[in-house]
Order: sequence, then C-alpha cells, then structure tokens
Amino acid sequence: MDLDFAKLAAKYKRALLDDVLPFWLRHSLDEEHGGYLTCLDREGKVYDVDKFTWLQAREAWQFAALYNRLEAREEWLRAAKLGIDFLKAHGRDADGNWYFSLRRDGRPTVEAHNIFSDCFAAAAFSQYAIAAGDEECADIALATYRNIWRRKENPKGRFSKAAGGARALVPLALSMIIVNLTLEMETHLPDSEREPALDGCLREILEVCRDKKRGIVYENAAPDGSHPDCLDGRLYSPGHGIEAMWFVMDVARRRGDAKLAADAVETALATLERGWDPEHGGIFYFLDAEGRPPDRLDWDQKLWWVHLEALVALAVGYAITDDARCLEWFRRVDEWAWARFPDPEFGEWWGYLNRQGEVLVPCKGGKWKGCFHVPRGLWMVWKELEGLSAR
Amino acid sequence: MDLDFAKLAAKYKRALLDDVLPFWLRHSLDEEHGGYLTCLDREGKVYDVDKFTWLQAREAWQFAALYNRLEAREEWLRAAKLGIDFLKAHGRDADGNWYFSLRRDGRPTVEAHNIFSDCFAAAAFSQYAIAAGDEECADIALATYRNIWRRKENPKGRFSKAAGGARALVPLALSMIIVNLTLEMETHLPDSEREPALDGCLREILEVCRDKKRGIVYENAAPDGSHPDCLDGRLYSPGHGIEAMWFVMDVARRRGDAKLAADAVETALATLERGWDPEHGGIFYFLDAEGRPPDRLDWDQKLWWVHLEALVALAVGYAITDDARCLEWFRRVDEWAWARFPDPEFGEWWGYLNRQGEVLVPCKGGKWKGCFHVPRGLWMVWKELEGLSAR
Repeated sequence: MDLDFAKLAAKYKRALLDDVLPFWLRHSLDEEHGGYLTCLDREGKVYDVDKFTWLQAREAWQFAALYNRLEAREEWLRAAKLGIDFLKAHGRDADGNWYFSLRRDGRPTVEAHNIFSDCFAAAAFSQYAIAAGDEECADIALATYRNIWRRKENPKGRFSKAAGGARALVPLALSMIIVNLTLEMETHLPDSEREPALDGCLREILEVCRDKKRGIVYENAAPDGSHPDCLDGRLYSPGHGIEAMWFVMDVARRRGDAKLAADAVETALATLERGWDPEHGGIFYFLDAEGRPPDRLDWDQKLWWVHLEALVALAVGYAITDDARCLEWFRRVDEWAWARFPDPEFGEWWGYLNRQGEVLVPCKGGKWKGCFHVPRGLWMVWKELEGLSAR
Repeated sequence: MDLDFAKLAAKYKRALLDDVLPFWLRHSLDEEHGGYLTCLDREGKVYDVDKFTWLQAREAWQFAALYNRLEAREEWLRAAKLGIDFLKAHGRDADGNWYFSLRRDGRPTVEAHNIFSDCFAAAAFSQYAIAAGDEECADIALATYRNIWRRKENPKGRFSKAAGGARALVPLALSMIIVNLTLEMETHLPDSEREPALDGCLREILEVCRDKKRGIVYENAAPDGSHPDCLDGRLYSPGHGIEAMWFVMDVARRRGDAKLAADAVETALATLERGWDPEHGGIFYFLDAEGRPPDRLDWDQKLWWVHLEALVALAVGYAITDDARCLEWFRRVDEWAWARFPDPEFGEWWGYLNRQGEVLVPCKGGKWKGCFHVPRGLWMVWKELEGLSAR
C-alpha cells in the first residue's frame, strides 16, 4: 500500500478547519437563547428550533475537546460555553436525569427516557470543566456519570415498555458508549473506579455481544452470549460494531495491550467485510446476521457517521497494529465517502444517502446529526495520519 | 375513461381468493399455540415468532369480516377463532389495556403503551362476536371501545414522554382509526354513542388536521388547526391522509351526505397529487408540507398499504361521486402497484419497495404487515368495481 499519509492528513485537516467547523460556528450558535440550532438544511438554514440533548451536548463536547486538545482558540471555548450554560440551566429534571429534548428557550419537551442524553452530557461537562477550569461542571459530569451506572441495568426506568415475558437482552450501545465516556472522563475518575468500569463494559462488548463464530458484534445478545433467533437477537449495525472497536482500540492503546488491539482490529475488519455493500459500495446501516428480512426500513442506507467511524477505526487500527488490511480498507472507504458525503457547494457533509449513494435527506443537521461525527472523525483521522506520516 | 370494471373486479377477486387468503391460511396459523405467525419471508417461512397485537387482531378481524360479509366459510371462522382465543387468553393487562406484543406462547413482551392495539382488538372482537354469536366477545369489544375513549386524550398514559414544554398537538391517526372502528362496531353501539363519536373525530380530521389552504391532512396540528413550524407540525403521510378520506367517505355514504362525500374525494385527490412521486411513480410514505428536509429516513419508500388504501379511496370515491378524476387516478395507481407489489412466484404482495419501486425488504409479513391491508383492499376494491360494473 502506498498511501500518502501527509497529503491525506492535509485533506482531513483542511475539511475540519476550513469547512466543517466554520459551518457550525456560522449557522448553529443560538445567540438569542443559548445552545445550538442543529436542524440545518443544505445551506445551513434552520428548519426546526427544538434542541436535542444528544446534539447540544455533543457540540459542546466537540468545541471544548478541540480547545483542550488541538488549540486553545477563544472562539471554540465560547462556542462550548454557549451549550454548557444552556444545558446547565435547562437540561436536567428534578432527579438529575437529562431531558431528551427542549424547546428553543429551554422548556423541556421530551422527558429523560434516554440514558444516552446523560452519557453525552457527562462527556461535554467533563471536557468543558477542563477547558474552563470549572469545578461545578466537573461535579455535574461526575454526578451524571455515576447516575448512569445507577441506571444502567434499567436505563429507561419508568418509561420501559418491557413486560414480564420480554427477553433479557444485553444491548451493545450502552456498554460501548460508557467505554468511550469513561476514557473521556479519565482525569475525573480514580483508577479504582475507571478500570473496573472499562473491564465490565469490554466484557459485555467482546464476550456477550460479539459472536464467537462470525467475530462480529451484534446489537443485542442474551446474557450468556447466545443469540435468540428473533429480529432483535439477529440484528447488527456495522457502524456500531466498528465504532465500538475503536473505543476498544483506545483502551488497548492506553493500556499497551497488543492482544486487545489485534482483537479489536480483527473484529472491525470482519464487521466491515460483512457490512460493505457489494453492489453499490458503502456500509449498510443495519443487517440481519442470518440474512433474514431486516426489520428496519432504513437498513440499506449509507449514513455519514458509519463511514466516519470506519475511517477512524481503520486509521487507529493501522497505527496500533500495522495491519495492512486496515490501509486497504481505509483507501476504499475514504474514496467512497469523500466522493459522496461532502457538499462542495454549501459545505459540511450530507448525512443520509440512499443505497445507491445519492442524497436521501437534503440536510446538514437534524435531530440526530449535529456538530459531532464529522468534526470528530476528521480530527481523529487527521491526527492519526499525521502521526503515521511522521514515523 | 374506459375502465372495464368487470374485468378489473375479477382481477382483484382472483388475487384475494386464489392467492392472498390461501397464503395466510397456509403459513400464518399457529396450530400449536394459537394466534398467528406474521413474520413471514418471501416464501412464507417464519423468521420471528413474536405476536404483535395489531396483527393478531387485524387477521382475526379479516377472517371474521369475510365470514360475515362475503361468505360463511367454516375455514374463515375457524381462522378467526384461532386469533380471538389467543387474544382473549393473553392479550390484556390487569387494567384491560391490550399489550403491544406477546411471545409465541402468549407471555407479554411489550406493555400496553399503544392504543391502536386496543382499536384493532375492538374491531376483531366485534366482528367475531357477530360471526360466532358470541356475547362475551361483544362485551370485550364494547369494553375496549369505551376504554379507548377514556384514554383518548392521553393515549400513552404512564408511557408518555411528553414533558411540560411539549406542544399540544392533535394527531390524525387516532381520530381516523376511531372513525373506522366506530363504523365497524355500529351494531354494538347505540346511535346516541355512535353519531357524536363520529362527529367529534370528523371535526379533528377535517377541521383541525386538514390544512385550509392546501386541502391536505397533516399528521398533527395544533388544537386551533394551525401548523406549528416544526418537524412534527409540517409532517404528512399521503397514505394516512388518503386512508382517512375513505373512512370519511364511508360515513358520508352511510349518512347519504353528498357534500361530505365530495369534500372527502377532493381531499383524497389533493393528497394523491402532492404525494405522487413525479420521478419514479408511486406514493411517498412521508413528506414535509413545506418541502423542508423530512425527519423520517423512510420518507421516499413505497409501501404496500399506502397504495391499497389509495385504490380503495379512489374506487369508493368514484362510486359515491362519479368524479372522473378518481378513475384516472385509479388507473394510474392500479398499474403502478400491480406491476411491482405482487410476487408471482410465491404469492402475496411485497410490503416495502424503495423509491425506485424495487423490493427493499424481502418479506410478506413482519411486525407491521400481516393479513390485513392486502386482503381488505383487494376485497373492498373488488366489491366496489363489481358494483360499478352492474350499474
């Protein structure tokens, strides 16, 4: 493989600093009410003003993390503060759980039924606490983190619809996000709390949700690691599986655990091979592991975050294992994604392509896409490639 | 227009009696545990055994209604009984609300958060009560119907996620289903209960959810009939709007109300014109009334039920108004749908096509598609065309 790491790194850096971050700074800051407007059409015009906690927190995290780790630009700290202040004032219910969504002015619209709101809030407050040296934000991050663990076995609480005969399934999503969050918050957590947390989540991801035979990670599994032969038991999302693997690689790198690194790379590659669309290219959104009819109508769509997470996993995977298959796949995913997702006319990336790779929803942001996967992915890949080019 | 009504009627009749009903009788009856298996792949093989109350009730309704109104075949009564007995034994929680889904053996898996389960159960028990002369089933239908009205203003009950700042929105879906259900149950309901129920729902559909300017029905509207400028406030589903209109036509026909009939036809046609895909044909699943980016990733898909509901609305619409536009549209929708949805190799209709009209999910049944829209639609269109050919 003859990838020009320096040239590729420059492409990712340029897109991050000259296109994507300016897009969000220009269009998403709500100077009137605080927080961010994330429902942005192709041009960046607002088409809904509701504020979704996932995206408020993720944008605040993004700017605070860039400030902490890339460059201490005042503009980034100020952008982060806009979301943090809004979330601090309006984001939590009386029990300290984070609402799912709020009106533009901060009134809650959807109750705190979704624990991922809390996960992204904890990450945002922990990064901002470091950026601003803000003790109160550190306390909020830590209280939220510990509340997530309290809620982990029944994350939906009173909103859970599971009845007596429901299958006990371990979901991949929460464990994988907690791995990432635990690393994000590492300076706030004592070793005695951090390491067992990581070990418990790694076990759920690698020993429960990962299939022994296929080596791919399912969305759910029975507590004993078996796969109930039903829609939920056979479902997997290649994007989730691959993203989970770079979280695991992150643990492996910090622990200097070469075996864990190789294991995560192997799993990411197996997932990518199964998840790649042989007909139109790109990575499917959801698949049934046994090839039965998928339950999700969006199963064949090509989503921005899936491709960015794959690029991150492949760049990190190569950096920590030198496995040449990572580079081959990196080139393939990079070519496919960059030919379709960026919008050269109005900037940023399209979020939702159909199976054929054409724009399905003409927006740059919405309820689920904000200032997060594109900048985080571009940033991480840039830095990995820069590191590789300097070897 | 020179449609050959008799020939067309024969096509619908043949598909119903020789293909679709035999498919479900052959593949969906669960002789072991009672009820129906609805997750059926292309060939009719089962790919999940969970039982979704919507589809259990709808299949029981379908066979009981055919028994009552088309022909008293023992096979149909027996098929209806299989679902009724299963639902009677396992379907309700302690408060008499209907679970959303059950295991194959009847243990509940998803709590009673969805009032449409109750609506379809009431319809099923009311038809079966007539078919079998079963008083207990009539009582269950009536108790369920009245419970729906008690729950109507807060249908999700303790599962509602709406927080204090949520917009008060009137949803189209519940009113339209109650119109249909109220007519279904007409022999069980006194006039004094039935007519005000219909009037209240018609008002919500035509005066609240219908847009004055465009003459189409939105999925939600503010109680004063205005449209909040947000994702939920601008959303409409052409299929829902058109289906709602044949429910309204049904009321108009029974009441001999020519003005209401013409109004419903006008609305159905306006919805169809806006909902038709000018590029690939077929009717979109969801659209944003202002052309902003839709929230639903499945917005451009072509669903079986949408096209069947349109065919019903156009056949009924022509029968009650003689509006020639109904025939023009009927020909267009009939041609598009019959060229794509039926599966000549294994029978029945595909449920989910992509925008281009190709099969998206290779199944005949699932969590949402069962023995209902295809047979009901074929049956109703057949009978309307037969009536037209006899004029």
